[in-house]
Amino acid sequence: MALKRNIYLEMKSIQEAKKIIFDKFPVMPSMDIETIASVDAEGRVLAEPAVASLSSPNFHAAAMDGIAVSASVTFGATPETPIILKPGVDAFWVNTGHVMPDGTNAVIMIENLNILDDKGVEIEAPLFPWQNVRKMGEDIVATELLFPRGHTVTSYSIGALVSGGVFSVCVRKRPNVMIIPTGNELRQWEDIDKSGMMPGDVIDSNSHVLAALCRNNGATSVCHTLLKDNLETMTAAVKEAVVKGIDMILIIGGSSAGSEDFAKPIVQALGEIHLHGVTMMPGKPILFGTVEGKPVFGIPGYPVSAIVAFEEFAGPLLVAMQGLYRPAREKAMVVPGRKIASKLGQEEFVRVKIGSVDERLVASQLPRAAGSITTLTRADGVIRIPAYSEGIQEGVAVEAELLRPRSAIEKTIVITGSHDNTLDVLSDQIRRNSNEVSLSSTHVGSMGGLMAIKRGTCHMAGSHLLDPEDGSYNLSYIKRYLPDESVWVVNLVMRDQGLIVAKKNPKNIKGLEDLKAEDLTFINRQPGSGTRVLFDYKLDSLGIPSRDIRGYSSEEYTHMSVAAAVLSGRADAGLGIHAAAKALDLDFIPVVTEEYDLIIPDRFFTTDKVQALIETIRTDAFKDRVMALGGYGTEKTGEIMFH
Amino acid sequence: MALKRNIYLEMKSIQEAKKIIFDKFPVMPSMDIETIASVDAEGRVLAEPAVASLSSPNFHAAAMDGIAVSASVTFGATPETPIILKPGVDAFWVNTGHVMPDGTNAVIMIENLNILDDKGVEIEAPLFPWQNVRKMGEDIVATELLFPRGHTVTSYSIGALVSGGVFSVCVRKRPNVMIIPTGNELRQWEDIDKSGMMPGDVIDSNSHVLAALCRNNGATSVCHTLLKDNLETMTAAVKEAVVKGIDMILIIGGSSAGSEDFAKPIVQALGEIHLHGVTMMPGKPILFGTVEGKPVFGIPGYPVSAIVAFEEFAGPLLVAMQGLYRPAREKAMVVPGRKIASKLGQEEFVRVKIGSVDERLVASQLPRAAGSITTLTRADGVIRIPAYSEGIQEGVAVEAELLRPRSAIEKTIVITGSHDNTLDVLSDQIRRNSNEVSLSSTHVGSMGGLMAIKRGTCHMAGSHLLDPEDGSYNLSYIKRYLPDESVWVVNLVMRDQGLIVAKKNPKNIKGLEDLKAEDLTFINRQPGSGTRVLFDYKLDSLGIPSRDIRGYSSEEYTHMSVAAAVLSGRADAGLGIHAAAKALDLDFIPVVTEEYDLIIPDRFFTTDKVQALIETIRTDAFKDRVMALGGYGTEKTGEIMFH
Repeated sequence: MALKRNIYLEMKSIQEAKKIIFDKFPVMPSMDIETIASVDAEGRVLAEPAVASLSSPNFHAAAMDGIAVSASVTFGATPETPIILKPGVDAFWVNTGHVMPDGTNAVIMIENLNILDDKGVEIEAPLFPWQNVRKMGEDIVATELLFPRGHTVTSYSIGALVSGGVFSVCVRKRPNVMIIPTGNELRQWEDIDKSGMMPGDVIDSNSHVLAALCRNNGATSVCHTLLKDNLETMTAAVKEAVVKGIDMILIIGGSSAGSEDFAKPIVQALGEIHLHGVTMMPGKPILFGTVEGKPVFGIPGYPVSAIVAFEEFAGPLLVAMQGLYRPAREKAMVVPGRKIASKLGQEEFVRVKIGSVDERLVASQLPRAAGSITTLTRADGVIRIPAYSEGIQEGVAVEAELLRPRSAIEKTIVITGSHDNTLDVLSDQIRRNSNEVSLSSTHVGSMGGLMAIKRGTCHMAGSHLLDPEDGSYNLSYIKRYLPDESVWVVNLVMRDQGLIVAKKNPKNIKGLEDLKAEDLTFINRQPGSGTRVLFDYKLDSLGIPSRDIRGYSSEEYTHMSVAAAVLSGRADAGLGIHAAAKALDLDFIPVVTEEYDLIIPDRFFTTDKVQALIETIRTDAFKDRVMALGGYGTEKTGEIMFH
Repeated sequence: MALKRNIYLEMKSIQEAKKIIFDKFPVMPSMDIETIASVDAEGRVLAEPAVASLSSPNFHAAAMDGIAVSASVTFGATPETPIILKPGVDAFWVNTGHVMPDGTNAVIMIENLNILDDKGVEIEAPLFPWQNVRKMGEDIVATELLFPRGHTVTSYSIGALVSGGVFSVCVRKRPNVMIIPTGNELRQWEDIDKSGMMPGDVIDSNSHVLAALCRNNGATSVCHTLLKDNLETMTAAVKEAVVKGIDMILIIGGSSAGSEDFAKPIVQALGEIHLHGVTMMPGKPILFGTVEGKPVFGIPGYPVSAIVAFEEFAGPLLVAMQGLYRPAREKAMVVPGRKIASKLGQEEFVRVKIGSVDERLVASQLPRAAGSITTLTRADGVIRIPAYSEGIQEGVAVEAELLRPRSAIEKTIVITGSHDNTLDVLSDQIRRNSNEVSLSSTHVGSMGGLMAIKRGTCHMAGSHLLDPEDGSYNLSYIKRYLPDESVWVVNLVMRDQGLIVAKKNPKNIKGLEDLKAEDLTFINRQPGSGTRVLFDYKLDSLGIPSRDIRGYSSEEYTHMSVAAAVLSGRADAGLGIHAAAKALDLDFIPVVTEEYDLIIPDRFFTTDKVQALIETIRTDAFKDRVMALGGYGTEKTGEIMFH
C-alpha cells in the first residue's frame, strides 16, 4: 500500500503567517462583552471605560488621631501663649478616618497636645485650614475616569474600582477553546495509570499542556475525548465545536502531510484553509483556517512543535481577541559555548541551558528533537536563529528569550562533564538545604567538562578520567589540559563501572573478552567520556582491536541511554555504572571501581552557591540517598582530593 | 473623653522586621504536602522529586513518514546501483510515530523513495542503523529525575510529567488566609450598591485587594464578614480562624496606636506580639504576632499602606511557606523630573509615573497620600528612598521597581501640564484606535507643562495660557519660555471657563466681582496654572486686590478638585471649566471661552504614537464624546495652530 500524501500549501515565513492569521480578524478585540463584579475582574480587560460614580472619601475625614477644630480657634497659639481648648465645645476627639465634626476643618495631632485632664487640652502652635484632613474627593472624584477601556484589571485596580463605586465592569469575555487531540496511538493518562502501557502507546500530554497555555493566555478550554485518525469523527468534532459557540479550535495531530493527516481535508470541507506550513523548526506543519468565521489551528503532534505553534500563533490570537496586553518574554544576551549550526530557510527555535559564569550568560544547546518535551523543560532560554542564517558562532553574544527569570539563572550552578545518576540526587538534595540555589547539569563526557572549564562555560566539571600510567583519576588530565587553572578537586562518589546486560544475562556474558562474540551487539559511549577512556584502555590491555566489537561506533551520551539501549534490545551490552543497570532492572557485571570527582576552579569554589553545594554533598542525608541507589561508595564523598 | 492610647513597640527597619518574621518560621517550606493530579499542578511546588516511571517513547518509533527497514538491506545502494525493496517483505510503510516493525531499525523518508507501483520501491542511498528512528527513552528514561523538589510546575512541566508516567505529584498545600476587615466606618460594596452611601461610610475595598494579592502569591483566602471595632467579636474571629486551621490571619485596620485599635490587645491576649511598627512609609503601623504558631498580621487600613504591608511581609511569608520562587519586580533606572524630598529615618515608597522621553525613563512623583489608592493605580513604578536619605535629586538616575512592563511604558505618551477632562476621553478613545498606545497625564498647570518640555520630561504639554496683551493663547509663552524648541501647537478643544458654584447658586453669585463678599470662600488654583493666570488677570482688570478674596491662598491642582471643594461645602466658588461643574451637578457662571492646546516638540510629533494620538483627536467619535461633556467647542479640534 502506497500512502496518499497531502501537500503543503506554499510555505510561509513566521512573519507572513502572522499577517495572514491576523488579517482574517481586522477588528480586535473581537470577543463579546459581559458585565461582572469588579472584585472578580482581576486579569480581565475593560471593554468600556470605568468612570467613578462615588467620591473617595465621600466626606471630609480626619487624617490623624487627635482633636478636630476650626483652624481659626488655633490662630495665635505659641509655646509662650498656648491656647486651651475644651473637648466637646471647640475641640472634638477624632481617630484617623472619622468624619470631621460640623464646623471643624483641621486636626491637631495627639502628639502635639498637652492633655490637662478636666481642664481641656493645650496647644502651642496654630493650624492652617484643612491641615491633617483628608478632603472629600482627595483620592477619587465622582465622574473621573478610573481606567480607560483596554485596561487590564489588576489587584490594585480592584481597590480603585470599589472605592470609586464601580461595583461591576464591562469586560471582554474569555475565549473558549476546543482542544481536539487526535491520533491512533494516543491514550489517556488515566487509562495508562489503570492498565499500563503497551508498545506503540503514546500518552496524550499535549492537550493538557495546551489547556494550561490557553489559561495563561486568558482563555478557557474544553478538551474533546481522544479521537482516532478518522475523517468522519474528526469532522463531527469540529462541527460540534462550531455549533457550541467555541471561539477557537485546536486540532492536535494530523496537520502534517501524511496519509492519516486529516486536519487539512476537514478544514477544507467545512471552511477555508489560509495557511499550511511555516518555515520554522519546530512547528513547521502548522495549519490555519477558518470555519464559520472561527479560527481553527492544526497543531503538530510533537510536544515541542505543539508548544511553539501555539505560542507563535494561537496564543497571540487569543490575547488579541480579548485586547490583553502581553509583554514579550524577558530577553538577555547570551554567549554560546559552542557553535550552533542551523538550516538555511527556516527560523529555528534552539533550546539552550543558560548559566551565569564569570558575569557572562553562557548558553549550551539542548538536543533539537521536537519530540522531546525535556528539551524545553530543561531549557533556560530559546535562541531564535533567523531563516537567513546558517547558525551562530561560538563565543559571540546573541539574544535569547528567557524561560526562567534571570535572577533564578544567576543562582544556578552549572556543572558540565561526565554524567552520573547521583547528580540527580544532588540536584534534588540541594533544594532541601537551600531554596534558592539550583543545579543545572549538561552531559558532554569528562573531557568535555575539562574543556568547558577551560572555555569558562561552567562552574564545575564532573570527571572520572583514568590515568593508565598510575591508576590515578583526573589529576594528570587537569595538569595537561588546565595548566593555567587553579582548581579544587572534590570527590562526589566512588562507583562501580561494568557491563550492563539484559535481565538474567541471556547471552551469558562474563566480561569484556566476551564482547568479541559475533552474535553480540555493543553500545558504546562517545569519545572523551571517562567511560570511553576506560573502555578503550581495557580493550587495549586485553589486546582486543576495536573493529572486533560490533556496535563499537554506536554511541550514547549517558549511562541511562546505554541502559535504555540494552533494555530495548537495541544492544546486548554496554559499559556503564551499576546505578543505571539497577534503575532499569538490568543485570550488571562489575569491571572496575572508579573515582568520580568534581573539578572546581578557585574563583567559583569560594562562592556562596558552590559552598552550599559542598555542604550538601557532605550531609549524611545525601550520602544515604546515594548508597540507596546501589553501586556507589561514599567513603571519600566530599573529601578534597587535590588543591 | 480622653482616649486610651496603645504605644508602638520599638520601631524596626524593614530588614529587621523581615528577620523577626522569618526567624519565627525556621523550617521552610512549612506547608503540609498533598497529592494532586499532575495535569492540575501548574503553579504548585513539588514537595518530592518527580521521577519518571515510564520511558518516552516507550518503544522505537518512526521519526519520519516512509518505509521502515533493517539498515543492512540498504547497504550498497547508490544512484547507479539502486536497491529495490518489497513492501510487506523487507520494507514496511510507517508514518511518524509508528512502532518500528520487528527486525527494522531505520526509516527511509518517503521523499527518497522511487515508488515502482507493484514492483516495490527503489532506494539510491544506504541508511545507517537507527537513522530516522526515535529510540526508546530518547526523551525520558524511566527512573530519571524529571524535576527536583522545590520545582514550580509550569505548563511545559505538565507535558514532561505526563509523558514520564508521573500522573500525580506531591506538592505543598496552598496556604489558606483569613482576612478580617475591621472598622466601624466600613460597609460592604453590595450594601452601598443597594442602599447608597452616607457621609462617614467607607467601602471595604482592602479585603478584596488582599484576596487578590493572596491569590497572586499562591494562597487561597476566606474573607470574614465586616467587624466593628470591638474587642470581643474581633477576638472571637481570630480564635475561630485558628480553630479552623487557617494558615495566616490578616486583621485589616486597628493595627495603629489609636483608642479603637484592637489588633495589639487581641494578639497579645491570644498569643504573642513580635513586631509593632516599621520605619517605612506607607505601612508604618504594621503589627506581627503569632497565635498558636500561626502568623497574624495587623494590616493598616489605608489602602496603599495595606498593600505595602502585605507585599513587604505577608506576601513573602506566604511564598516561603510554599517554597515558591518569586522573582523580584523588574527594575529600571529612572530620572526624577523634579527633586523628591523624603523624611529621614523611614524608608519611603514613592509612587511615580514613568515616561520614556528621549531614551530616558523620566519619573514624576504622585501624591504621597497613603489613603489614595489611585496613587498606586496611576503609578508606573515605585522608588524606594532609604531611611538614611533625605530624598533624591532632580535629574539623577535612581532605581525604580516597575509596576507596568517596561515595553508598555515605552508605548505611553506622557502629557504634562494643564488639566482638562477631555484628556480622560482622549485616554480612553485612543485605546479604541490603537490597542498599544496609551496616554499618561500629569497635572502641574500650563506653565508646569512648558517647563516639562524644556526639561525634556514629557512628550507634550496641555496649555491654555492667555496673553493679556493680545488675547492670544500660548504662543507668546512658547516664544518666551521655549525659545530653542521647535514645536507644533495642536488645538485639543475650546472650552468655557467660569465660576463653579453650589447647585442652585444659593449665595447668588453673578460674577467675579461678587467674590469680595465677606461670607464667601473661594477655592483657587495653583500658581502657574492657566486658570490661575486667567483669574489673576481678571482680578487685575477689575481692580480687585487678591487680599480681598477669602480663600485666595487655598489651592487645588485640578478642575475636578475645585468642583469637589465646592460640592463638599469647603468653598462657595472656584474658577474652573464647565465640564467639571457639570460632572458634579454644580452650577456654572461663564466667564470666558478659551483655547486649550497641545504643545508638541518636533522630535515627538513625528513618532508613531503621537501620530496615532493626533489621528484619534481628529475623529468624529472623539469630538462627539467631547461635545457630550458640555462646555466644550470642537470647531478647532485637531487643527495645527502654529508650527
